Amino acid sequence: MRVEGDPEVQQAVRFGLFHVLQAGARAERRPISAKGLTGPGYDGHAFWDTEMFVLPVLTYTQPSAVRDALQWRYDTMAQAQERARTLNLEGAAFPWRTIEGPESSAYWPAGTAAFHIAADVADALRRYVLVTGDEALERDIGLELLVETARLWRSLGHHDRAGRFHIDGVTGPDEYTAVKNDNVYTNLMAQRNLLTAADCAMRYRDQALDLGVTEEEAAAWRDAANDMHIPYDSDIDVHEQVEGFTRLQEWDFEHTPAEKYPLLLHYPYFDLYRKQVVKQADLVLAMHWRGDAFSAAEKLRNFTYYERRTVRDSSLSACTQAVLAAEVGFPELAHRYLREAALMDLHDLNENTRDGVHMASLAGAWIALVAGFGGLRDHDGKLSFTPRLSSRLSRLEFSLQWRSMRLRVDVRPHQTTYSLRNGGPDTVLDLLHHGEPLRVTCARPVTVPVPPAHPAGPQPEQPAGRAPLMHLPEQAG
Amino acid sequence: MRVEGDPEVQQAVRFGLFHVLQAGARAERRPISAKGLTGPGYDGHAFWDTEMFVLPVLTYTQPSAVRDALQWRYDTMAQAQERARTLNLEGAAFPWRTIEGPESSAYWPAGTAAFHIAADVADALRRYVLVTGDEALERDIGLELLVETARLWRSLGHHDRAGRFHIDGVTGPDEYTAVKNDNVYTNLMAQRNLLTAADCAMRYRDQALDLGVTEEEAAAWRDAANDMHIPYDSDIDVHEQVEGFTRLQEWDFEHTPAEKYPLLLHYPYFDLYRKQVVKQADLVLAMHWRGDAFSAAEKLRNFTYYERRTVRDSSLSACTQAVLAAEVGFPELAHRYLREAALMDLHDLNENTRDGVHMASLAGAWIALVAGFGGLRDHDGKLSFTPRLSSRLSRLEFSLQWRSMRLRVDVRPHQTTYSLRNGGPDTVLDLLHHGEPLRVTCARPVTVPVPPAHPAGPQPEQPAGRAPLMHLPEQAG
Repeated sequence: MRVEGDPEVQQAVRFGLFHVLQAGARAERRPISAKGLTGPGYDGHAFWDTEMFVLPVLTYTQPSAVRDALQWRYDTMAQAQERARTLNLEGAAFPWRTIEGPESSAYWPAGTAAFHIAADVADALRRYVLVTGDEALERDIGLELLVETARLWRSLGHHDRAGRFHIDGVTGPDEYTAVKNDNVYTNLMAQRNLLTAADCAMRYRDQALDLGVTEEEAAAWRDAANDMHIPYDSDIDVHEQVEGFTRLQEWDFEHTPAEKYPLLLHYPYFDLYRKQVVKQADLVLAMHWRGDAFSAAEKLRNFTYYERRTVRDSSLSACTQAVLAAEVGFPELAHRYLREAALMDLHDLNENTRDGVHMASLAGAWIALVAGFGGLRDHDGKLSFTPRLSSRLSRLEFSLQWRSMRLRVDVRPHQTTYSLRNGGPDTVLDLLHHGEPLRVTCARPVTVPVPPAHPAGPQPEQPAGRAPLMHLPEQAG
Repeated sequence: MRVEGDPEVQQAVRFGLFHVLQAGARAERRPISAKGLTGPGYDGHAFWDTEMFVLPVLTYTQPSAVRDALQWRYDTMAQAQERARTLNLEGAAFPWRTIEGPESSAYWPAGTAAFHIAADVADALRRYVLVTGDEALERDIGLELLVETARLWRSLGHHDRAGRFHIDGVTGPDEYTAVKNDNVYTNLMAQRNLLTAADCAMRYRDQALDLGVTEEEAAAWRDAANDMHIPYDSDIDVHEQVEGFTRLQEWDFEHTPAEKYPLLLHYPYFDLYRKQVVKQADLVLAMHWRGDAFSAAEKLRNFTYYERRTVRDSSLSACTQAVLAAEVGFPELAHRYLREAALMDLHDLNENTRDGVHMASLAGAWIALVAGFGGLRDHDGKLSFTPRLSSRLSRLEFSLQWRSMRLRVDVRPHQTTYSLRNGGPDTVLDLLHHGEPLRVTCARPVTVPVPPAHPAGPQPEQPAGRAPLMHLPEQAG
């Protein structure tokens, strides 16, 4: 990976990839924990960070590590099923925090209620199969992972009188907003989980029958997905992170001094939970991984709204804010968030690197570059890119695994070059470049212009004192 | 107190009054605990039961005990203020569970979030002053209790964009529905708390100034009260116990066998909290103590709706269901609930009388009789009655303290006699009898007819297997 115009990030992203590859490639069917093997933080436990931050990077760089990680999740299936039974639910409830499979988090409310881990596992599986084409794994363990997580969602949610499907009493990624109804991230990820399971069951009918999946059950998954309620405040035209979020009391950021952060150490959760204060990207995270569910105008409005209320008391936030800042038209802000994610440990920004590196934040630096400035998305089984650099970057170059091929993307300020390797003479890769279809072959690289950016409107503001921790790099001489 | 037509209840209500008087009259500025002094249950702790079940009975029968109980609460003020500061709030946050004043309940979510205790204390004070006319207590400790609880509500709640006042993230009386927005009981009791405080501060201006109450602060209390949001589902025309309650998933009562009750011992709270299952009267309790905030038609619809979803896994429910069943026109159902409340310990209905008697349920027998079949209410500083007996009762006679006087109410199937004692020749008591003004003097009793009942509509149903534990008494020979 090449980053020109920010030598610190260039160094940091290599440092990060080294640790992500070390932790991931050598996990060998053991969990990839939050600190990898670099320190005692989180007591060696693995969380949803693995599936939503580390595995997306490994999927495009070292997919065999993802295969092992998915196999590990699959190997804990019996415990996840037992956990679901304990909770009066169907399917499999994967643990929010674990080493060997059992739920190791305190019961309430952040741990168990964070059911989105099930959809995160399903999405990691979906992405791995999409990128690798590994149908053997899809059939042998993927189908069951999808079926059991779809069953969880179907039993956890319910239809209301008007036929809308709700998932109530859950906690999304934002740990300052817990046990609420209709978390947008959870609902959108569950929606994709349900549809992916139904499609997979159709493709592997015999294996699905062995798992007891009837046509009626698959239809019920599709119905729930299609009826999924996504709360939206039409009064101010933004999505509600959870039902009713945008009418909760505002947090008094003006009177929250710097030494009171992280808030969780200074204010009771009771107070955090009932106000508009966001620990980490949640609705914004939904706009990354389920960006297909939002219009461009919605993304801009939502990003600006949640930016004002997000304090980043979690290291699982800056990289996602970078991705969306880049998408909605604030490349300099994206660059600052990229630097925060990438330099988290090298600059010891959270003053806890002694406990081990932040594996997800390091992976997040790759995500901020590739999904942020490269604009990589893989919705609906299709690769798409919207490359556009910040003013300080003169070049970003990265490689992605795609089936047996290797796609190299070389982003310059005004053009992008796509080249494909390791394929035969007839191999083609159809992708989208800034929304336009583009066919790439192994014959020769394709260079296309980067369209000029639209003006995005007023710069988003963060809560007082909560701007990105890093400034832009020194301008090259 | 005389109850003719149900000798068991006659005995039980005397048994209950004995224990309530013993626990209350001899508390002498110590808390009146949930079990009185009769057993080790709840480790001797006092709860909101004291203010909302025990004190209403003592206010009308032994008000000096109420004075002591209020003095005890007042003596814990410093701890309640400190608790509020800990929670980032103003005023006083009285403990949900305590012996000596500090909050002794687990932090989350049933204990601390059950802020309604503040309004319960304020209402007990309001009732005591109303019934006794004890202005010295009102001035010396009552004002400060009202001011500090009003300050709690003003800081706990907030206005939304449209100017509605919300109290978010709290737990009402129903312990199967926790940490929700806009609990109707809490909001209505807080509303009365705020208005009572503003009125009291106006009447004791100098003392209020000493407490720092400005005209602006009192105005802010009135505004919050007037803007209080009361969630209502206009789709099905019932009040929502908490915001969004009526669109939550229904509990599967059909497949909940008898041995799975009480539910809290067999299902995770996670599951109870997010479904339409009610442990104890909550919206129905609001319709008792804030009955002035509901129309008769609303009460009937609400009672029927919540009756289907209330499992009474708490002993703090049957008496309230009796009161509302009587009010909305189901006197036989009210009688069965009265019997459940009254005989809770004598029949050991919950199989735990060995831990001590249920003080609130015993007090509840008196409440079920006097507020249920007698129809006593004291909204807006006025006594009102809607006496109407169940078919099995031939007579209900009870006495109430009112200032220095003693009001005796003798309810028969078709008439009620009110007589006043201990007053001078000019003493009058203006009350309402079935909505009509009635003046009672010490000169002679007044006998007025009981108007015939309107047909109430279909009999309300309880969840499968959760009908009142007691049947109607044997028909007198």
